[in-house]
Amino acid sequence: MKYHLTYSLLFLILLVAACNTKKKTDESIRQAETLFPKGEELNSKNFTGTVWLYMMGARDSTLHARFGNVTFAPKASTNWHSHPGGQILFITEGKGYYQAKGQPARLLHKGDVVEIPRNVVHWHGAAPDSEFAHIAISLNADEGGAVWLGPVTDEEYDSSIMQ
Amino acid sequence: MKYHLTYSLLFLILLVAACNTKKKTDESIRQAETLFPKGEELNSKNFTGTVWLYMMGARDSTLHARFGNVTFAPKASTNWHSHPGGQILFITEGKGYYQAKGQPARLLHKGDVVEIPRNVVHWHGAAPDSEFAHIAISLNADEGGAVWLGPVTDEEYDSSIMQ
Repeated sequence: MKYHLTYSLLFLILLVAACNTKKKTDESIRQAETLFPKGEELNSKNFTGTVWLYMMGARDSTLHARFGNVTFAPKASTNWHSHPGGQILFITEGKGYYQAKGQPARLLHKGDVVEIPRNVVHWHGAAPDSEFAHIAISLNADEGGAVWLGPVTDEEYDSSIMQ
Repeated sequence: MKYHLTYSLLFLILLVAACNTKKKTDESIRQAETLFPKGEELNSKNFTGTVWLYMMGARDSTLHARFGNVTFAPKASTNWHSHPGGQILFITEGKGYYQAKGQPARLLHKGDVVEIPRNVVHWHGAAPDSEFAHIAISLNADEGGAVWLGPVTDEEYDSSIMQ
């Protein structure tokens, strides 16, 4: 009986230690998977829900490009808008949608790329059950900033993601 | 003595099982961390070592941008070159370097961004002990493609990364 207790206790201690190590490893990996910083919470009428923006690169760039990391809380999205110079999105986290006006919404995951043509009215944002992050590169920025339109209504959002 | 053996065996079996689970978890996470596909191995005189390229987006883009994912084997690099329209690099994997001619090399990790001004002669590539991957977006591409110069010599590479 003494052996039972001694070994049971030893086994339990070591198993708990092994589990804790694993948990720590997973947490550090999850941390590292956030490729770019979330930045500051946006306070803008051009977005619905909670959105964070981390701008990267020089504002007075001669590259004619503006770029940053955008993170959406679940169900958060941009309003409808367009870019005179076009935009590229590189999805880095989670699950979300891109929809061009009049087209079916496109489901997006980490590793997907969206090439948004000039002047195409569209929105992008998170799925209802997932955060969503992408790098956004606005191109030919000397041709003008984004043209903002109205919010994506609940009906538009729901019908888009049900397609 | 019998208890010794029984418990030792039970403990060993369970510890091995726990370790195996952990290993599998780490492997699946490492796989998922490769954000974009490696694509095809490049066969180009403008690179040294083994490099893979995965082009993304339309070649006939009206966005004036060309973009893709570039993966370098350890110590592989571009030759010295410049971009008339500039370029942005988003580091997605591993450890590497960016060096503008006459400047110290910059050590790069996953999550770093490099804004390469127009016509600045530079190279980028992997550290000796790590693969390295980045998205590369060549901007204002209608102003001309990359201007390729000579290879980064072993002496240049070694002295750059020792700084």
